[in-house]
Amino acid sequence: MTIADIAKLLQLECTSLCERNITGINTLKDAKEGEISFLSDSKYEKDLSITSASVVILPAAKAHLLPDGVVALISEETYLMVAKLSESFAKPIQSSDIQPIIGTGSIVYPTAHIENGAKIGSGCTIMSGVYIGTDAVIGDNVILYPNVSVYRDCVIGNNVMIHAGTVIGSDGFGYAHTKMGEHIKLYQNGNVIIEDDVEIGANTTIDCAVFGSTTIKKGSKIDNLIQIGHNCVVGEHCIMVSQSGLAGSTTLGRNVVMGGQSATAGHLSIAPFTTLAARAGVTKSIIKGGVYSGFPLMEHKLWLKLQAKLGKILQ
Amino acid sequence: MTIADIAKLLQLECTSLCERNITGINTLKDAKEGEISFLSDSKYEKDLSITSASVVILPAAKAHLLPDGVVALISEETYLMVAKLSESFAKPIQSSDIQPIIGTGSIVYPTAHIENGAKIGSGCTIMSGVYIGTDAVIGDNVILYPNVSVYRDCVIGNNVMIHAGTVIGSDGFGYAHTKMGEHIKLYQNGNVIIEDDVEIGANTTIDCAVFGSTTIKKGSKIDNLIQIGHNCVVGEHCIMVSQSGLAGSTTLGRNVVMGGQSATAGHLSIAPFTTLAARAGVTKSIIKGGVYSGFPLMEHKLWLKLQAKLGKILQ
Amino acid sequence: MTIADIAKLLQLECTSLCERNITGINTLKDAKEGEISFLSDSKYEKDLSITSASVVILPAAKAHLLPDGVVALISEETYLMVAKLSESFAKPIQSSDIQPIIGTGSIVYPTAHIENGAKIGSGCTIMSGVYIGTDAVIGDNVILYPNVSVYRDCVIGNNVMIHAGTVIGSDGFGYAHTKMGEHIKLYQNGNVIIEDDVEIGANTTIDCAVFGSTTIKKGSKIDNLIQIGHNCVVGEHCIMVSQSGLAGSTTLGRNVVMGGQSATAGHLSIAPFTTLAARAGVTKSIIKGGVYSGFPLMEHKLWLKLQAKLGKILQ
Repeated sequence: MTIADIAKLLQLECTSLCERNITGINTLKDAKEGEISFLSDSKYEKDLSITSASVVILPAAKAHLLPDGVVALISEETYLMVAKLSESFAKPIQSSDIQPIIGTGSIVYPTAHIENGAKIGSGCTIMSGVYIGTDAVIGDNVILYPNVSVYRDCVIGNNVMIHAGTVIGSDGFGYAHTKMGEHIKLYQNGNVIIEDDVEIGANTTIDCAVFGSTTIKKGSKIDNLIQIGHNCVVGEHCIMVSQSGLAGSTTLGRNVVMGGQSATAGHLSIAPFTTLAARAGVTKSIIKGGVYSGFPLMEHKLWLKLQAKLGKILQ
Repeated sequence: MTIADIAKLLQLECTSLCERNITGINTLKDAKEGEISFLSDSKYEKDLSITSASVVILPAAKAHLLPDGVVALISEETYLMVAKLSESFAKPIQSSDIQPIIGTGSIVYPTAHIENGAKIGSGCTIMSGVYIGTDAVIGDNVILYPNVSVYRDCVIGNNVMIHAGTVIGSDGFGYAHTKMGEHIKLYQNGNVIIEDDVEIGANTTIDCAVFGSTTIKKGSKIDNLIQIGHNCVVGEHCIMVSQSGLAGSTTLGRNVVMGGQSATAGHLSIAPFTTLAARAGVTKSIIKGGVYSGFPLMEHKLWLKLQAKLGKILQ
Repeated sequence: MTIADIAKLLQLECTSLCERNITGINTLKDAKEGEISFLSDSKYEKDLSITSASVVILPAAKAHLLPDGVVALISEETYLMVAKLSESFAKPIQSSDIQPIIGTGSIVYPTAHIENGAKIGSGCTIMSGVYIGTDAVIGDNVILYPNVSVYRDCVIGNNVMIHAGTVIGSDGFGYAHTKMGEHIKLYQNGNVIIEDDVEIGANTTIDCAVFGSTTIKKGSKIDNLIQIGHNCVVGEHCIMVSQSGLAGSTTLGRNVVMGGQSATAGHLSIAPFTTLAARAGVTKSIIKGGVYSGFPLMEHKLWLKLQAKLGKILQ
C-alpha cells in the first residue's frame, strides 16, 4: 500500500514520496522505516523527533516537529484516520505455511487446533478444544486446560497453567468515533506475553495490545473471570482475585494484590506492594504502596473511619 | 397437546373446546391461533382483548376480559402454571433435517459444529470449537472466534465479529417459585438477534428471550465478560465496557455508554446518549440523556459533590 | 513417597518411621492412615487428637497434642510446607484405563472429549466441545451445552442443565507465600458435587475444593458469569444472579438469594432465606435471614435510610 493509496483511502493530501510503499502501522516510538505512525495524543509529541516512521498522520500545527524526510499526512481527526486505516494493516487469522512444532513429550488432544507457525515447547499438555493461533509460542511444561483460546502471536513462558475457557489475546476494546456516533474499530496489532510460572484461572480474558504487548510478568497468579485490557502490564508476583478488572494501559508494580471485584481505570500506574481491598475502584495512579479501599479509593484505614461515621449518621 | 392435556398437567379445569390441539405458548400480543397464552402481570391486561391465542391461563377475576371463543383456564398462580407448562413446548436442541448451508468463500474449521437447519453467509470465518445451533442464521463476513456458542434460532447480521468463548442465546434466567421454595424453570422460547457491524468481546453472555428476541442493534460494541439478560434491547451504536451487565428486559437507547462494572436492574429504559460511569448502578429508568454515576444512581456532578462532602466528614 | 522423602523435600527433620510410605495429603479430620496432614490454622487444633493421619506437619509448640504413633514434622511455616508438598500428591489429568461408560439414550457429540474412567448416565446430551475429566460422574437427563468443561472427579446429579462455556472443577485459588513474595501453588485435591435439579448458566466458574468438595445442593439455580470459590457450599434452592461471587469456603443456607454483582468474602456462613440485594458485599457471617444491602452490608431498610440521609447532605 503506497502513501498515495493511504491518502486516497483517508481522503487526505499526499505532497511527497507518494509512491513509497508502506508495510505496517505502529506507534511513533516503535515504528520502523517503511511504516506509518500518528500523533493523536499530545503526550506523545516528544516522540515525533525520534520516530523512524516513513509517514505520520498528525494535525497541521505539529507537522513542523517531524524529522526531515518523514512524510506528513495532515488531519485534525488523527485517531479516526488511524482507525480507518488500521483494517488495511490488520494481521490475518492465518498467515504461515510452517507446520506447527510440538516439543518432546508434549500431549496435544485431538480436538485442539494449532495453527501453522505456532511452536509448543516440551512437556506440555494441550487439552481438548484448545486453540493456538498463528505464530504463537508456548514454553515448556505448560498446561492449557480445555477450550482455552490463545490468539496469534501470543507468547507464553514456561510452567504456565491456564484454566478452562480462558482467552488470551482477544482484541482490545478500541474504537474511534465519527460525528454521526458510529464507532470505527482500531484493529489490534499487538500480542500478549505471559512470563514463566504464571497461573491463570477459568474464563478470564486478557486482551492483546493495540501495538506492542500486554504483559503478565513472572509468578503472577490470576483468578477466574478477570478482565485485563489491552496494553496492561501486570508486575511480578501479583495476585488478582476473581471478577477484578484492569482497564487498558494500566501497569501494576510487583506484588500488587487486587481483591475480588476490584478494578482500575485505564492508563494508571499502581505502586509495587499495593493491596486493593475487594471492590476497590481506582481512578488515579497510586504512587505509594499500602492498603486501599472504596470507590472513590482511599486508604483502608480512612475507609473504615468513613464507614463508622456513616453508621453514626443513621443513629 | 390438547387443552384437556394441558388442564390435566396443571390440575386446572377445562370447560370448553377441550379437544382442541395447542401448538405453542406465547405472550398475549404475539400468540397466534392454536397457541396458549397467559396473564401473570396486570400490566398486560390491555392485551387480553386483542389476543389471538386460543386459550389463556388467567385469574378468575380477569376471565370476563377475554374475547369470545377464547378458552379460559383459571388459576391464581398463573406464572407457576406457565412455567410448569413451558417444558412441554420447549424447542428441542435439534429439530431440522436440512443440511446446513455455507455461503461462498466461508471457512469452517473442522472442529466447529454446525447443526442442521443453520445458514451461514459468504466470506465468514467459523473457527475451531464454534457451535452454531439449529436454524441459526449467520450473515456475511462474520468472524466467530474459537469456542463461541450460538444457540438455536439466533440471527447474526453482516460484518459481525464475536471473540472467543462468547455465548449467544443461552437460556434467560427465569423461574416461577412454589410455596415450598422450589424454582420451576420457565423454558425460554425466544432467540437473540445481533444486527450488522456489531463487535462482541470474549467470554460475554447474551441470553435468549423467553418469548421474542433479545436484540443488539446495528453498530454496537460490547466488551469482554458482559452479561445481557433475556429480552434486553441494546440500541444502535451503544458501548458496553467490560464486566457491565443488563438484567432482563431492559432497553438501552442509541449511543448509550456503560462504563466498566456498571449495571442496570431489569425492565428499565435508558434514554439515548446516556453515559453511565464505571460502577454506576441503575434501578430506575432514565428519561433524559446525561452522565450518571454511583449506586444509587445520580447525576455525575452530584456524585462528585457527594464524594467531596463525604471527604469533609472525615476531617 | 516415604516420610523421609517428604522431610528431605521440605528440608525438615524426620525422627521416626522415616521409611513409612505416604500415599496422600488431607485435612486432619479426613486424613486416613498412610496419609499426611497439617495444622496451619489454630481453628483446627481440636482435630489433632482425632486425626488418623500417619504424619502431621505442625509447629513445635503443638506437637505434644498429636496422638501416640503419629509422626510429627516440625515447621513454623506449615502452610508453605503443605503447598510445596502438594504438587507431589496432585492428581494427574489422566489416571484411568477404563473406557468411559455412556448410559442408554445419551447423545455425545463427536467433538466432545470424555476421559477414561468417566461415567455418564442415561438420557444425557453432551454437546460439542464438552470436556469430561477422569472419573467424573454425570447423572441421568443431564444437558451439558457446548464447550462446558468438567474437571476430573466431579459429580453431577440428575436433571442438571449447564449452559455453554461453564467450567466445573477448575483449581481453587490457593497459594502459600514465601518471604521473597513468591506464591507457591497449593494443588487442589478435591472436586465439585452438583446435586439434582440444578441449572447453571453460561461462562460461570465453580472451583474444586482443595480437599473434599465444593457443593451445589439440590434445586439451586445459578446464572451466567458467576464465581464460586473452592470449598463453598450453596444450599438447596438458592438463586445466584449474574456476576455475583462467593469467595472460598463460604456456605449459603437453603433459599438464599444473591442479587446481581453481589459477593461475599470467604469462610462465611449465610443464614437460610437470606436475600442479598444487587451489589451487596458481605464481609461477616449472617446469622438471621432477612434482606440485606450495601457494602459494608446492612439491613436493606437501613440502607434505604442511609441513602435518604446522604441525599440530604447534598441539599
